[in-house]
Amino acid sequence: MRQAGRSLPEYHVLRAGIPMLQACQTPDLVTDITLQPVRRHKVDAAILFSDIVVPLRAIGVDVEIKPGIGPVIGSPIRREADLSVLRPLVAEDVPYISEAVASLVAELGDTPLIGFAGAPFTLASYLIEGGPSRHHAATKALMHGEPKLWHALCERLAAIAAEFLAVQVAAGASVVQLFDSWAGALSGAEYVRFVQPHSAQVLRTCAELGVPSIHFGVGTGELLPAMAQAGADVIGVDWRVPLHVASARVGPEYAVQGNLDPAVLLAPEAVVEREVRRVLAEGRHTPGHIFNLGHGVLPQTDPGVLTRVVELVHHYANENSDDAYSLGNLDGA
Amino acid sequence: MRQAGRSLPEYHVLRAGIPMLQACQTPDLVTDITLQPVRRHKVDAAILFSDIVVPLRAIGVDVEIKPGIGPVIGSPIRREADLSVLRPLVAEDVPYISEAVASLVAELGDTPLIGFAGAPFTLASYLIEGGPSRHHAATKALMHGEPKLWHALCERLAAIAAEFLAVQVAAGASVVQLFDSWAGALSGAEYVRFVQPHSAQVLRTCAELGVPSIHFGVGTGELLPAMAQAGADVIGVDWRVPLHVASARVGPEYAVQGNLDPAVLLAPEAVVEREVRRVLAEGRHTPGHIFNLGHGVLPQTDPGVLTRVVELVHHYANENSDDAYSLGNLDGA
Repeated sequence: MRQAGRSLPEYHVLRAGIPMLQACQTPDLVTDITLQPVRRHKVDAAILFSDIVVPLRAIGVDVEIKPGIGPVIGSPIRREADLSVLRPLVAEDVPYISEAVASLVAELGDTPLIGFAGAPFTLASYLIEGGPSRHHAATKALMHGEPKLWHALCERLAAIAAEFLAVQVAAGASVVQLFDSWAGALSGAEYVRFVQPHSAQVLRTCAELGVPSIHFGVGTGELLPAMAQAGADVIGVDWRVPLHVASARVGPEYAVQGNLDPAVLLAPEAVVEREVRRVLAEGRHTPGHIFNLGHGVLPQTDPGVLTRVVELVHHYANENSDDAYSLGNLDGA
Repeated sequence: MRQAGRSLPEYHVLRAGIPMLQACQTPDLVTDITLQPVRRHKVDAAILFSDIVVPLRAIGVDVEIKPGIGPVIGSPIRREADLSVLRPLVAEDVPYISEAVASLVAELGDTPLIGFAGAPFTLASYLIEGGPSRHHAATKALMHGEPKLWHALCERLAAIAAEFLAVQVAAGASVVQLFDSWAGALSGAEYVRFVQPHSAQVLRTCAELGVPSIHFGVGTGELLPAMAQAGADVIGVDWRVPLHVASARVGPEYAVQGNLDPAVLLAPEAVVEREVRRVLAEGRHTPGHIFNLGHGVLPQTDPGVLTRVVELVHHYANENSDDAYSLGNLDGA
């Protein structure tokens, strides 16, 4: 879950005075921050601490992550000439990622490391809008008004995301997760026409690398089948759609990941326990369920509650030992 | 569509130097602002220029609308004692609304005026969070953790919203629209348990007053049947769900309103025309369709494009004269 180390005091100690992108480019920090929730919460997998704009910065895009705002782009992309900044990524652009992943895999032992990249649509939205956007208006206008430019942009972003994941897999990541954080802003028709082919290109690379992939977005109830058909093995589900409903929408070939509402973790313990049990029960009616939150951990979350959620999941998984649960890293990247 | 006068230069002239809530409490301004898009775009209905927090301010809640932020509450509601600020609304609390509606109805002649109120959940979220919220975390925590307090809060808000609409109907509004702007943040189970009964209470009052009601939210694909069953005659649909799909979800007893993506209005004219035709074609496969945008007009929209959309809708409606189209006010409140 992205931007979610925020709930851990030990994370704030490590990050003190260090800008986000600098932290993402410092292997020791990436390693320590990625390991923090594994050590504290005993989750069953780690997810690389990173940000979706790391590969963009690595090829020279003028991007900063401003605290309280998010990624801000110096020169937004609006015309064909602007595309030249998006040259292909090569492994040598991100040595700190290879180094961090290799050191993490050694530290983690049997605990799998999930690699991490942003999907072409979400990256394109940042690049076109110049930063986070509520309405993605310029993005949609460009998509509809200049489809050739749109597809050229997304082809470049797909190649960059695929290579960013390939670097992580080469260094030892055993699963990858493709984050299309903003895809839920689109209609199904827009997604299929303008976005799915490019995310499919990224996911095809992952399949060729022989690693399973998780495809995640928020507010994607209408898009779940198209996001699954883009070629993922596991489809992420936020809290708006129950897991068995999501599973019925995508069909039996896909596992599901999710979908506890992060806001519920601020409710009393009895409510948290009830909701964890509900998610697990609904997950039993799917071909495969990775327990996780439906979105990032909120900064005000009590870390003790997260630890308790992991204990609950492990407890109920043992109670139902015919089922296999795996707990995605509740925190981290 | 709320907060959408923003695209009209004549609106900015009228509002210059006048805070939002003051404008909402000034009958001449409410009248002129409500009429602006009717005059300019020749839409088939007007919607009262107002804000969902107007009735809260009218009973003494410490609320301001801060430019660029939205409603900000001085003392957020977190415990039972805080409820006492929410006394019942009476018509005498909002004389400016009665006056504005009466003057509007006289000016509008045969053009219907749509009344306007915020639904209990969205009002509750502002009151609990203290302002606009991305995650509604405190709201959800209170809802789950203190259901008795939650329901007591929403009962008061439902009574206030119902009376606010009754005042508008008594003064001559012939349709009402209930805005549950944030309902899309909830799961279906949460909506049915914590929200639907209170919105149903408001809509019951509207039915008793003998006026049809429109029930609107954004990102509500999973909630459409429950929002319709709350008792509306027309269900608002954002751009994420095609109208015929939304209609199939809610069943043949309900008309639909929507669902052109406001962001599409920033694309070239040919795209706008194609999308308008698509929405109209999909609307033909429903028992009744009020053409509208799927959300508020974006401030950067060219008003000329809005006028052209209205012309297109009227043109195609005449081309298909067996169908009856009505164009909701694209702008206004």
